[in-house]
Amino acid sequence: MSSSQHRVTFQPQGRSVSVLPETTLLEAAAGAGLIVDTPCGGVGTCGKCRVQVVRGAEAPTQADRRVFSAKELEGGWRLACQNRVRGNMVIEVPSASLFGGDHQIQGSSTVGGPRELLPPIRKVYVELTPPTLEDDVPDLLRLEGATGPFKVGLAMLRLAPRRLRDQGFKGTAVLSDGQLVDFEAGDTTGQCFGVAFDIGTTTMVASLLDLGSGAEVATVSRMNPQVSFGDDVLSRIKHSASCHHCLDELRRAVIEEAGRMIEALSQESGVDPQHIYEAAFAGNTTMQHLLCGVDPSQLGEVPFAPAYARGLLLSARDLEVPINPHGSVYVFPVIGGFVGGDTVAGLLATQIDAQEGPVLMVDIGTNGEIVLMHDGQLLAASTAAGPAFEGARISCGMRGTRGAIEKVVLDGDVQLGVIGNAAPTGVCGSGLIDLAAELLRQGIVSPEGRLRPADELPAGLSASLAGRVQQDGDGRTEFVLAEPEIGTSHRAITLTQRDVRELQLGCGAIRAGISILLRQAGLKASDLKSVLIAGGFGSFIRRNQAQRIGLIPQEIDHRRIHYVGNVSLAGARWVLLSVSARRHAEELARRTRHVELSVDMDFQMEFAEAMVFPEGEHAGETEQ
Amino acid sequence: MSSSQHRVTFQPQGRSVSVLPETTLLEAAAGAGLIVDTPCGGVGTCGKCRVQVVRGAEAPTQADRRVFSAKELEGGWRLACQNRVRGNMVIEVPSASLFGGDHQIQGSSTVGGPRELLPPIRKVYVELTPPTLEDDVPDLLRLEGATGPFKVGLAMLRLAPRRLRDQGFKGTAVLSDGQLVDFEAGDTTGQCFGVAFDIGTTTMVASLLDLGSGAEVATVSRMNPQVSFGDDVLSRIKHSASCHHCLDELRRAVIEEAGRMIEALSQESGVDPQHIYEAAFAGNTTMQHLLCGVDPSQLGEVPFAPAYARGLLLSARDLEVPINPHGSVYVFPVIGGFVGGDTVAGLLATQIDAQEGPVLMVDIGTNGEIVLMHDGQLLAASTAAGPAFEGARISCGMRGTRGAIEKVVLDGDVQLGVIGNAAPTGVCGSGLIDLAAELLRQGIVSPEGRLRPADELPAGLSASLAGRVQQDGDGRTEFVLAEPEIGTSHRAITLTQRDVRELQLGCGAIRAGISILLRQAGLKASDLKSVLIAGGFGSFIRRNQAQRIGLIPQEIDHRRIHYVGNVSLAGARWVLLSVSARRHAEELARRTRHVELSVDMDFQMEFAEAMVFPEGEHAGETEQ
Repeated sequence: MSSSQHRVTFQPQGRSVSVLPETTLLEAAAGAGLIVDTPCGGVGTCGKCRVQVVRGAEAPTQADRRVFSAKELEGGWRLACQNRVRGNMVIEVPSASLFGGDHQIQGSSTVGGPRELLPPIRKVYVELTPPTLEDDVPDLLRLEGATGPFKVGLAMLRLAPRRLRDQGFKGTAVLSDGQLVDFEAGDTTGQCFGVAFDIGTTTMVASLLDLGSGAEVATVSRMNPQVSFGDDVLSRIKHSASCHHCLDELRRAVIEEAGRMIEALSQESGVDPQHIYEAAFAGNTTMQHLLCGVDPSQLGEVPFAPAYARGLLLSARDLEVPINPHGSVYVFPVIGGFVGGDTVAGLLATQIDAQEGPVLMVDIGTNGEIVLMHDGQLLAASTAAGPAFEGARISCGMRGTRGAIEKVVLDGDVQLGVIGNAAPTGVCGSGLIDLAAELLRQGIVSPEGRLRPADELPAGLSASLAGRVQQDGDGRTEFVLAEPEIGTSHRAITLTQRDVRELQLGCGAIRAGISILLRQAGLKASDLKSVLIAGGFGSFIRRNQAQRIGLIPQEIDHRRIHYVGNVSLAGARWVLLSVSARRHAEELARRTRHVELSVDMDFQMEFAEAMVFPEGEHAGETEQ
Repeated sequence: MSSSQHRVTFQPQGRSVSVLPETTLLEAAAGAGLIVDTPCGGVGTCGKCRVQVVRGAEAPTQADRRVFSAKELEGGWRLACQNRVRGNMVIEVPSASLFGGDHQIQGSSTVGGPRELLPPIRKVYVELTPPTLEDDVPDLLRLEGATGPFKVGLAMLRLAPRRLRDQGFKGTAVLSDGQLVDFEAGDTTGQCFGVAFDIGTTTMVASLLDLGSGAEVATVSRMNPQVSFGDDVLSRIKHSASCHHCLDELRRAVIEEAGRMIEALSQESGVDPQHIYEAAFAGNTTMQHLLCGVDPSQLGEVPFAPAYARGLLLSARDLEVPINPHGSVYVFPVIGGFVGGDTVAGLLATQIDAQEGPVLMVDIGTNGEIVLMHDGQLLAASTAAGPAFEGARISCGMRGTRGAIEKVVLDGDVQLGVIGNAAPTGVCGSGLIDLAAELLRQGIVSPEGRLRPADELPAGLSASLAGRVQQDGDGRTEFVLAEPEIGTSHRAITLTQRDVRELQLGCGAIRAGISILLRQAGLKASDLKSVLIAGGFGSFIRRNQAQRIGLIPQEIDHRRIHYVGNVSLAGARWVLLSVSARRHAEELARRTRHVELSVDMDFQMEFAEAMVFPEGEHAGETEQ
């Protein structure tokens, strides 16, 4: 350890790290493997990255003063993103400030597999006749006689002839997209695997597939460690340009996590990583750029044009993905700067172009991607829904992890569904939609989105619900969803006027996007034969509640709305299992026309209109 | 310098090197960049690697005693291959012991260029419209709009988008076999080069081509530095297996020399190596294996099957060829273990399959390659002609360099042609053929190959010629071609009985190969419409003399014999200039059936018969 570095110890995790002076506590924690949650991207506004400096505290910053009480400040509470290391420190990191933990696996999807099982990876066991003077056919040509023609790179050119001889001209040839990538001893045709990745801005999910049977062998979900550099794609893009090694730092963060996930899959399943010959990655355009080490700066500036469009077939060794080093990596094609490979994978896995149209696919997240299929035409747009649906920028928001309220029914009093049946610690996106829809239904929130004060509440509202409408210290109205539990550190869980506005913005953005696409296609919402809701998040949304708050147009029969789950991961699986699925993915990306909403003259008008919650009560029953 | 190493200084070159004890003088010299000639492969038999140890001489070895006189031994004369470094030394290396020097460029060929100029490398200058919100087509797709579709690797994926922006969406795209390999500032379409290599066992020749015009810009010839590890392919194969880094040592030797040749071409022409986007290599099967770092052991053992057959398209960076690192390297397809890419290149450049058949192509060298084209069928065989035609294993043999007797006429007395008009120091292959043919014509050598002693010489032989038939100290007959010049260190240049036998072996092997191929095709020699003599060596052979000694069948009208020169280099040029030429090379290699002479029951018989010089006088006139 250099004398110019300081030592920072994190409790109760007991991890230490040596860092240069002026490192933020956030970065120091990341260095110790602790990902502190920073939905605002580390700019000191969200107040989520609370830590307690036990030893070595400096004077609080302005941001600290805004967030913490005087007593908390005295107790050493600070924002990790705003404070810097200026000496040796000991820091308490409450688990509530950490991202991840028992984060739910968001890999499930309701879609099936590709029609044909014909993976780009092929294994062939061969027993060749060794060469003789009468039959001196060159080694690789001899092998091609049994496998069909292949290309060969320098590494296998050097390896294969020796292996052929060492193994008595017997063994298993591994072919990847028509290239010889390995020649293994014995018959290993039963050991042929691929790994599919969905690289979300927040969550990474990986699925290990047996390419022989198409079966999923293991799955794993992890936080994207890039979250320590900012919560949304724009903060990542900004970070990538903030120093000369920052792009590589982001690249390594995601690649190394992918490596650890492969290790975990391998341990869980007993599959040797050498027998994984292909990895497929689907993610939004920024995530895919960062994964490949391609500068994403241009995605952060008008006109947001991506670097590449077609799918990429790269070498596992070049990309540093720790599968068989001669294996390959497929990165999905993208449609636009904010309509990425995850959307293409979704179009593939939902077979959107084979459905009876018009069909709408909506992937709800911080960035909402919307694709309309009509008359064989595909239109795609993205809209900045904001992080409300992921629990950020909401006073009591949180992600869909243990302790999150994910379901709310207001019927006389409050009934809550909490993930993991734990004591509630916050509200996740689906809970928020429920809550807003229920408040609207009960008239506690007006169609314009006003949280009505106690004296304006509708007659007939139960006393119990009415009692939850309270004023905060500054006289602002709030709805108390859960009181603090005695004997715990939990605060009250309340919805504020500001929270409702955030939600309105999110709903408005998505609704406006849907309206513009429908208008460009000359369609009405009622023309839609089906609406596919995608995203790990989507699997928790109740359809009629989403319609009630105007996220999905009310004109659509709610039976036509389908949750398709994480179709991005499903699509990534498909391309591992079928060469024609991969071709189809390329075709879908090429066929889809990208509509830039910000240049549509009607967008702002639609957006303003969609901000207002729908007046009419939706006809469908409340789903439980 | 480690104290365990010794310092060896070579004079008059003034080069020093530090080596481990027990290093041979040969290796030490190679370390100092001096390639000492070792036709025998460094086993102490040829006596060519003479050096004078000025300081630090040890007791002479047995091999030294066999080669040097007592006086020479006392003067410090030693064989570089047999003596080892056991202390600091100063060593005189006479230029006669060095290989190369003013070695002739053997790059010339009488064949033309390919029919179409359509190189695999293509440069396109583009001025693109920068993206806007209305036109947010991804960068690489935008570029494809101007260049046509291309594939992209990781390196260019990372580089191209930034370059596009830095250069204001203008610049020159470089496409290699449909892959984007560079994007350069400005219009550099005029700067597009490729480099063709003929990698001979002894000599490497390179030609720099302007791919825009097809013109040769510069050419360079160097010795293959692998000669310090042995003179023929078998000694190289043996060396490659002699230690665990020996294969890589051979690979680096040839790759580094190729690099120096590219540097020399660049200096001579002023062409930036970054503007060389492709290198094509043609060589015999062993040379190509070593170039690629592929273990050649299997080429040294029955059944001599090569590792690969198809042409290889590799990355310049992977192969460490110092052209544009994103550029590519094409290595020719091979036909068999001893019929390599140089032969395929020859078939391509002579357009053998477009000629009126039957046609025979013979590449005369240590290894003779013979290809017969008849009725659209191609048959190829190789035959061990021995090193006589390259001046080795012949008492006064030498390569075709300055001082070599390359032409001999015995007419009353001896008339000699000497390369460089210098004092003669030895006889090269073509001189040897002349000499043997003339001795045969004069009756000094009998058809059976007997060098007649003075008392058996034919009547009518000029006194001057008869006087040159002498007895050596052991009573063996020899023909004195040149007396030692007074005041020089030159010895007498004589042909011995043993030399005639070596030549008979070489002629016999090639003649037998030709006979077998003709027989397999059901043809007689007189059916041949043309015979193409290839090889750098071939350009010095006089056709009727070659027929007189039976190297080429006498039944063929000598006007049908054509010298095509170094067609290996010519073919390597073709594939740089034309994609269809490259396809054609692959097709020729695939179509050619390899005939293994050693399994032909008739070969030994044919060989024995061909050992006898033809009886009849050839009808053609003596060519001058």
